[in-house]
Amino acid sequence: MTRPAQRLELFALAGVPWVEAGADLAEVALTSLARSARRLEDGDVLVFAQKLVSKAEGRLVDLRRLEPGSRAQRIGRAVGKDPRLVELILSESRRVVRQAPGVLIVEHRLGFVMANAGVDQSNVINGNDDSFALPLPVDPDGSAERLRAELTRRAGARVGVIINDSFGRPWRVGTVGVAIGCAGLPAVVDRRGHHDLTGRTLKATVVGHADELAAAASLVMGQADEGQPIVLVRGLLPAERASAASTLVRPAAEDLFR
Amino acid sequence: MTRPAQRLELFALAGVPWVEAGADLAEVALTSLARSARRLEDGDVLVFAQKLVSKAEGRLVDLRRLEPGSRAQRIGRAVGKDPRLVELILSESRRVVRQAPGVLIVEHRLGFVMANAGVDQSNVINGNDDSFALPLPVDPDGSAERLRAELTRRAGARVGVIINDSFGRPWRVGTVGVAIGCAGLPAVVDRRGHHDLTGRTLKATVVGHADELAAAASLVMGQADEGQPIVLVRGLLPAERASAASTLVRPAAEDLFR
Repeated sequence: MTRPAQRLELFALAGVPWVEAGADLAEVALTSLARSARRLEDGDVLVFAQKLVSKAEGRLVDLRRLEPGSRAQRIGRAVGKDPRLVELILSESRRVVRQAPGVLIVEHRLGFVMANAGVDQSNVINGNDDSFALPLPVDPDGSAERLRAELTRRAGARVGVIINDSFGRPWRVGTVGVAIGCAGLPAVVDRRGHHDLTGRTLKATVVGHADELAAAASLVMGQADEGQPIVLVRGLLPAERASAASTLVRPAAEDLFR
Repeated sequence: MTRPAQRLELFALAGVPWVEAGADLAEVALTSLARSARRLEDGDVLVFAQKLVSKAEGRLVDLRRLEPGSRAQRIGRAVGKDPRLVELILSESRRVVRQAPGVLIVEHRLGFVMANAGVDQSNVINGNDDSFALPLPVDPDGSAERLRAELTRRAGARVGVIINDSFGRPWRVGTVGVAIGCAGLPAVVDRRGHHDLTGRTLKATVVGHADELAAAASLVMGQADEGQPIVLVRGLLPAERASAASTLVRPAAEDLFR
């Protein structure tokens, strides 16, 4: 990452099927790539939508099996959400950051500050049924690393893997893709101490590299109703040391907004 | 934007020169494109780095001409920044959102919540001189619209223009590219009321489209020390109604974190 690439390609894999628990996502990706007459190359990054990974890992929850506690019932009334869904959200969270009618922002057990702990009800089962919900993978960095190792082994190319999700932001309208899992590439690129073109030392240039890749992939991934959940990114220059998406979570002690 | 593109290309224009006040950025972009044997096509989006636009618009400020007031002096001491720089930052801001040693986060006069009101001292003049600083363009949406109109006229192709900058985020480490100016494409894409693959109505899917494009462009733009400040994005599908980057600023009344 001493210099940026001059040209990047983002390519959404075609014909990715609806996956069920136990699906082999490395196989899904390689099959879709083959169908497009593409092979993985060293330096390629594959971005997987969180929902695809959660489904393959069997994270789907039948809300009818949940017994909402009194806190979930109270919050559910306050925000206007199904108390069973709130129970699931709370079980995935360290604490509630903000709540308001229609809004429940929590600190996820992995540190992500996000709406509903990432628990999703759209596109989670075939059929329009509010009884099911899909949390994040248990360990998205671990999932990314397993996918990276498996893809690298089967394709014979050193690739990186990102798992992305859409997060809202304070102060700005709309969601953007962010990285919740990362393997084989740096999640954060630290440019502090480098010099700019004029010779001046750069003071604070730590870049959320995997988040920028996650956002870029979202552009071709689309949202739930299109279904292009795996994106190939080609053209990144060889990177410095790889790091996990957990490094993108700002430690609470350094956070002015917690 | 009913469906996402399957393939996007991001291409950093080569040989963009150091620009001075009064530079014709449409000309700069078209010359660089011609050098790469490329022509603009309908639907292309050009992303310009904020710093390039601010320089061309003559926004450079000689801090030696500024007389810091008592508030700028007090804040300067508290955060450890040059009080003349703080004076400039305050003059670009509605209010201070957070201050701490080394950190001054404000609400910019255009509503952006950002560090230092976007005022930059890196790569602003040729030579390592802390006496100069560069604020955002006066009206980045207007700048984008003028560039869009000029590029469309000269190239004979309907293009979009984004002006991007790097913003830090609460809760997450590292900066990402965001759109501070947008013309000829939708800054925000509202998918509410659409149906997902299962027939379930999507509840809250407003996408920060121009921010995702701005982040993607940052990947090939690099930071200050590389100098690839204009990026061509090709492959977006025809979009719904265009909107300005101002629509990405969340109204204070709807913001739970202000």
